[in-house]
Amino acid sequence: MRTFVLLARKARTDDKFSLDDLPSSGGRMDVVARCISSALFISHAMRKDVVFYAVLCGPPNSPVTLKIISSELAGVRPDERSIGGQIKSALSGPVSKDWEEKQQGIYVSTKSFQEIIRELKDNSIYVLHEKGEPIEQTIPDPDPVFVLGDQVGMPANDEAFVMRYAKKKLSLGSTPYLASSVINVLHWIADRNGL
Amino acid sequence: MRTFVLLARKARTDDKFSLDDLPSSGGRMDVVARCISSALFISHAMRKDVVFYAVLCGPPNSPVTLKIISSELAGVRPDERSIGGQIKSALSGPVSKDWEEKQQGIYVSTKSFQEIIRELKDNSIYVLHEKGEPIEQTIPDPDPVFVLGDQVGMPANDEAFVMRYAKKKLSLGSTPYLASSVINVLHWIADRNGL
Repeated sequence: MRTFVLLARKARTDDKFSLDDLPSSGGRMDVVARCISSALFISHAMRKDVVFYAVLCGPPNSPVTLKIISSELAGVRPDERSIGGQIKSALSGPVSKDWEEKQQGIYVSTKSFQEIIRELKDNSIYVLHEKGEPIEQTIPDPDPVFVLGDQVGMPANDEAFVMRYAKKKLSLGSTPYLASSVINVLHWIADRNGL
Repeated sequence: MRTFVLLARKARTDDKFSLDDLPSSGGRMDVVARCISSALFISHAMRKDVVFYAVLCGPPNSPVTLKIISSELAGVRPDERSIGGQIKSALSGPVSKDWEEKQQGIYVSTKSFQEIIRELKDNSIYVLHEKGEPIEQTIPDPDPVFVLGDQVGMPANDEAFVMRYAKKKLSLGSTPYLASSVINVLHWIADRNGL
């Protein structure tokens, strides 16, 4: 199992965004959709071993966390608009603390980033960070949890919190990649190492 | 300079597709848009050293090739819809054999895949192929040209043609990745090796 946690600091937390403008109306919901696509899809198929968390921290109800379990999904396509539509449906209606399945394989909760990290603390957690250890010097443990910031980055208190539980910070180098690109590289490295 | 050539066998060759449905109406134009986004963007910035060719081979006027020069682009965002809109504008109106700049940094021509390869033949060409040499055993030459098929794959005659000029086939392994994921991994490898 590979788990990704994306902290999306501006992403809208209800369904009042337009599929015609994911970047502005959705608080960079295009980033979230692209990361989900990168995490779930290979050519002509979906990976069966991925859990993806997107912690949405934009208006009006921050935080809301989406949890996507790839093995349970149906009818999802890799394009951003299609995934944006799934997110929009999942965010309609009230959200409570307990995980609720809103679409097949897509769960929502008002859990915060720190609550999600606490749920995952028994796994090997790696925080992607420009100043981390070069990933080519570290083969992650099996069943890794990769924690990523978005285009805004991770607040200092959340970073300090996750580092209490994380095995280490990992870096892909000095280039500041899109979060979706980072996910693609992580999958490739994990595939090569049979994780 | 890094050059990517994507053969998009079903992608529409005029502007009669809907931004609300890039996958169906555009003949998987979402794949093309996603590859362009992966090729051009890092976080908060555009790479300045990328040329991207998309050889579109769908109806009604196959082939039409898009040539995108990252250093000349302006006002492009990384989301699929925005890039789809740029493609749509570039495909409006007649297209001739000579390169014509339709949007800033976006050129179109009726050149075929084989004509593009012939234009690039003095560079080090690498064809991404599942049965190629493992990429971790090969550091590409500087200024590489990476040639990729789309979700349909490359016709045998085009593959035979490009192999006349290519240095070798490279493989990212046995997992059949999305073309956009392949581009992300190639950029990462090229960045690490200072290409």
